[in-house]
Amino acid sequence: MAARQDGEAQAVRQRIRSGGYDGQTAGMAPGHVQGNLIILPADWASDFLRFCQANPKPCPLLAVSEVGDPMLPTLGADVDIRTDVPRYRVYRDGELVASPTDIRDLWRKDLVSFLIGCSFSFEEALLADGVPVKHIALGRNVPMYRTNIPCIPAGRFSGPMVVSMRPLTAADAIRAVQITTRFPTVHGAPVHLGRPELIGIKDVTHPDYGEAVPIEGEEMPVFWACGVTPQAALLEARPPLAIGHEPGCMLVTDLVNSRLASL
Amino acid sequence: MAARQDGEAQAVRQRIRSGGYDGQTAGMAPGHVQGNLIILPADWASDFLRFCQANPKPCPLLAVSEVGDPMLPTLGADVDIRTDVPRYRVYRDGELVASPTDIRDLWRKDLVSFLIGCSFSFEEALLADGVPVKHIALGRNVPMYRTNIPCIPAGRFSGPMVVSMRPLTAADAIRAVQITTRFPTVHGAPVHLGRPELIGIKDVTHPDYGEAVPIEGEEMPVFWACGVTPQAALLEARPPLAIGHEPGCMLVTDLVNSRLASL
Repeated sequence: MAARQDGEAQAVRQRIRSGGYDGQTAGMAPGHVQGNLIILPADWASDFLRFCQANPKPCPLLAVSEVGDPMLPTLGADVDIRTDVPRYRVYRDGELVASPTDIRDLWRKDLVSFLIGCSFSFEEALLADGVPVKHIALGRNVPMYRTNIPCIPAGRFSGPMVVSMRPLTAADAIRAVQITTRFPTVHGAPVHLGRPELIGIKDVTHPDYGEAVPIEGEEMPVFWACGVTPQAALLEARPPLAIGHEPGCMLVTDLVNSRLASL
Repeated sequence: MAARQDGEAQAVRQRIRSGGYDGQTAGMAPGHVQGNLIILPADWASDFLRFCQANPKPCPLLAVSEVGDPMLPTLGADVDIRTDVPRYRVYRDGELVASPTDIRDLWRKDLVSFLIGCSFSFEEALLADGVPVKHIALGRNVPMYRTNIPCIPAGRFSGPMVVSMRPLTAADAIRAVQITTRFPTVHGAPVHLGRPELIGIKDVTHPDYGEAVPIEGEEMPVFWACGVTPQAALLEARPPLAIGHEPGCMLVTDLVNSRLASL
């Protein structure tokens, strides 16, 4: 995966690192890959790595750090995961205990960082192609749902797949399959389209996470595997320490969205 | 497009040419491309060529002959379009007047042959991937429907797109979009999926051509542009002479289905 050293993503990270920004990152450094963060102790990391390997659609790995190393050099020369995310979430035994803007004081020699691909990347490709993304147009978070599709368990990690939903016309749904198939590291093709009840969603108007978006006229719901899946599995496994990001407050990398395309 | 000179397709054509076979060609010379035939006088051919160019999903051209030349060398060294189709249909002013097994006596120096891609090629790819093709399993012709999707008119040719329908689960429909996208010269990706009424199909249980296939359980109807589209446009235009093939009695070429894949 190729990085673009135009300095825009680096400037965003610098601003965040210096304490100048602690909000959501949507729309910042357009064209650059943003990712979901999960940090775990090494004795939990190998189970989690196997869980991601076994469930690549909800858990597409963009990078895994060396044990104890806070730097993620494949995502940008200066990426320090202790300071470069706007706001973190610290969990102990599965419970949220703090939401700091910096985790240098929590860093340990046994921590491993995972960066998981995010739908921001393929949404940019959809919009560039003229496929409308309704929740963005409405200024809402994407609606997400727990399904009855089981993930493949790995060690202490298991649970249902969580999906995000975007309403599309049939022609746009077909085009969206083509576009997102090209992006396997940011969830790839949809996992379902059409009737929500077939994947265990009882009421599509009440998402489990995010905000509702109406399905209107000729639209059908189209469902993609979602990066909330590994977060949900993680909290259920209740590791003694886990660190993630505040929702929407992502790591902005030097990687280029269009370079994630497999074709 | 590459040909496979294993002699199997050539043997089929030889048998047809010699009068030893005049039936349907489904399943003959597996792996080889079969195509829909349309023959027109030269003064109608350029309008028809423009119609195909403007509507590539229903009218994907595999080959166009030289004016007056009955040979189609890009489809096989010995392909003679006057003798190598099991059974023809001869139309005068849009009316069916004969169904011969040979058209040598009808050949003229101004005739042009068009070979149009057929869904047999992508159905083979679906089956090879494990995506079920229900009408084949049921031993029926594929159901086809006139839609309210207008073709782009060209000269004397116009009319609605005709589509074929295959019932699939959502996961298989997504996979089928991926597979058939790779085959643009045999109709490519679906044009619609889900609610039939959105493309003007009032009763999906009563196809306009072919045979009904039930949509059951978790299946949804998936619609592909169909090679009957240009045949319907042709008959409405009522050229003084047109020659096609008896339904299901196709030209078997030396081309290899898998080589039609764009990727």
